[in-house]
Amino acid sequence: MKIGIIGCGQLARMLALAGWPRGVQFSFLAGPQEDPSPVMGLGTIHRLQEGDSAESIYQGLGEPDVITTEREQVEVALLASLQPFAPVFPQPEAVSICQHRAREKQFINDQGIATAPWQPVTPQTDLLALGHELGWPLFIKSCEDGYDGYNQWRINGPDDALPTLPEGVACIAEGGVAFERELSLVAVRGRDGKVRCYPLTENHHTAGILQHSLAPAPALADGLQQKAEAMAQRLLSAMNYVGVLTLELFLVNGEFKINELAPRVHNSGHWTQSGALTCQFENHVRAIAGLPLGPTDAPLPAAMVNLLGVEPPNPVICPDAKLHWYNKSVRPGRKVGHLNLTHADPQQLSRQVSELVAILYP
Amino acid sequence: MKIGIIGCGQLARMLALAGWPRGVQFSFLAGPQEDPSPVMGLGTIHRLQEGDSAESIYQGLGEPDVITTEREQVEVALLASLQPFAPVFPQPEAVSICQHRAREKQFINDQGIATAPWQPVTPQTDLLALGHELGWPLFIKSCEDGYDGYNQWRINGPDDALPTLPEGVACIAEGGVAFERELSLVAVRGRDGKVRCYPLTENHHTAGILQHSLAPAPALADGLQQKAEAMAQRLLSAMNYVGVLTLELFLVNGEFKINELAPRVHNSGHWTQSGALTCQFENHVRAIAGLPLGPTDAPLPAAMVNLLGVEPPNPVICPDAKLHWYNKSVRPGRKVGHLNLTHADPQQLSRQVSELVAILYP
Repeated sequence: MKIGIIGCGQLARMLALAGWPRGVQFSFLAGPQEDPSPVMGLGTIHRLQEGDSAESIYQGLGEPDVITTEREQVEVALLASLQPFAPVFPQPEAVSICQHRAREKQFINDQGIATAPWQPVTPQTDLLALGHELGWPLFIKSCEDGYDGYNQWRINGPDDALPTLPEGVACIAEGGVAFERELSLVAVRGRDGKVRCYPLTENHHTAGILQHSLAPAPALADGLQQKAEAMAQRLLSAMNYVGVLTLELFLVNGEFKINELAPRVHNSGHWTQSGALTCQFENHVRAIAGLPLGPTDAPLPAAMVNLLGVEPPNPVICPDAKLHWYNKSVRPGRKVGHLNLTHADPQQLSRQVSELVAILYP
Repeated sequence: MKIGIIGCGQLARMLALAGWPRGVQFSFLAGPQEDPSPVMGLGTIHRLQEGDSAESIYQGLGEPDVITTEREQVEVALLASLQPFAPVFPQPEAVSICQHRAREKQFINDQGIATAPWQPVTPQTDLLALGHELGWPLFIKSCEDGYDGYNQWRINGPDDALPTLPEGVACIAEGGVAFERELSLVAVRGRDGKVRCYPLTENHHTAGILQHSLAPAPALADGLQQKAEAMAQRLLSAMNYVGVLTLELFLVNGEFKINELAPRVHNSGHWTQSGALTCQFENHVRAIAGLPLGPTDAPLPAAMVNLLGVEPPNPVICPDAKLHWYNKSVRPGRKVGHLNLTHADPQQLSRQVSELVAILYP
């Protein structure tokens, strides 16, 4: 079995490392400027050339049996162009939904699932009136390519200055949600239609970037796991999705609102490498390869701490932590690795995570 | 960190796959006739040439920071010759003890630890008298290079024909031991002298080759794990050993006798990949790299079934099993892969193993 991966970052690296033990071979498509260090040695790397045809990409990837992507912001047309040569999972249509905020939210709402209140907006929209309707703060986001503050605006209240939105850029407005916690659910659907979900994960961000996760999310009310899994089942089936998909969730008054869908393995699922019977990477490989999914049970509470622009800590400090290093050079804020921890006692685990975070980010 | 491994089989492969996630780099020394398929792609392979100097081997391995071996039957002189260039773990002296049956048993007995009764023999020894003294059946084995029946003889009783032993080949005689179970203890000692042990494992052989293991060994009497760990602690410390060492044990009337020591990661420890918080391969890497050892706890009962000359079973039959495939061609009896299983209920696990064995070896 040969799998071609669009992308050559840490997610591609960890997919390959999860497939290698069972003899799966990998190849990687690197963008013209993309740093392939994370996957160096793990398979053929094909560097995308201008004017590359789908066929030459497919051949450059060594004629894989199945093609997948490690990233959400992949050209859907590229994925679609490869379909005549090999199955592509997740399917381009599913990726396309997740790439466009309005399409994504509409799709979620169409399945009867809640998001934050939202509406499409144009430069002509009365944002003041909309803020009163959807709730403050009001967030304006472009439908595509808006992340890390780019093409995003926050209006705190009626007295705040109103932005001038760019013409010709599809945007939505979202009402602020006073969420108690940010959770995520990593779900996976096989080619046979079977869905498995990992325990809900609690995520903690700094400056919009995931810093650490705890799983299962501590002290969850009864029934929330089942509710989240039912949502995942509905969404994945409606898309006829194959592979791992992650639901980013807000918990608001004990109910879920979906913030975003990520059509891929996800940073908030990295703990599964140490904490679950089958990690998200292996289950993505199994799903797209047409194999039965592995069990997603988590025998012990687990946690993940990202290494954001920092070298790994002295191993003596955290001998029980499992280091995953991405073979990237360290630059400020860059995701260069993570540590996974497990502990039978979730409170001890939480304390270990706090200590580690304090050491890494003093 | 760069690790050079003497050997390029499945143990080298799994050592590399355990070190890759944390960014360790690997290289492999392949013997003149050795098949390097298991490690292809995982690092530089240096093919041993006639007349290779230690320095050229060291350079062919990419000047590793530390050197280890995947096999017991490695030339001790080769290991020793590499020591001026990089630390070699386990140390040649320790490997040398384990390669020679008389030295090994003497060493074990010198630590006050029991083996089967044994004595050196020569072609002139009165084997009949010795059989009466040590117990029937009497096994004669050459001290070196005796395995899989080669240079080994079994004398069932006083009426059995007596073999003519070859001149000039050091041999020992061992009295038969009516053992109840064959167990093993995988132990690891760090460069800091700290020792950790995995739960005792019960091993089942067919035709002298390990077929499957169960861990922790079911229904063990209280105190046996502690006794085994105390033996490991004594042996490893006496050798100033660094890395994984495996004790092959007979359980006789509730007491241990050591059958053999294996100075390396061991087939009976493969279950740790799924069943322990840190697998034996990662802990060997940690030990020789001078890192603190990882926890060896096993949160769930685990089992391993070898694939001996057979293709992997249809994954639909055992979706919960973790396949490890060595990238070797399938030949009768050849170890080409294994399956790891975990289950909270040891009886269910044992049943799954029996079913799998029945399917694989009908």
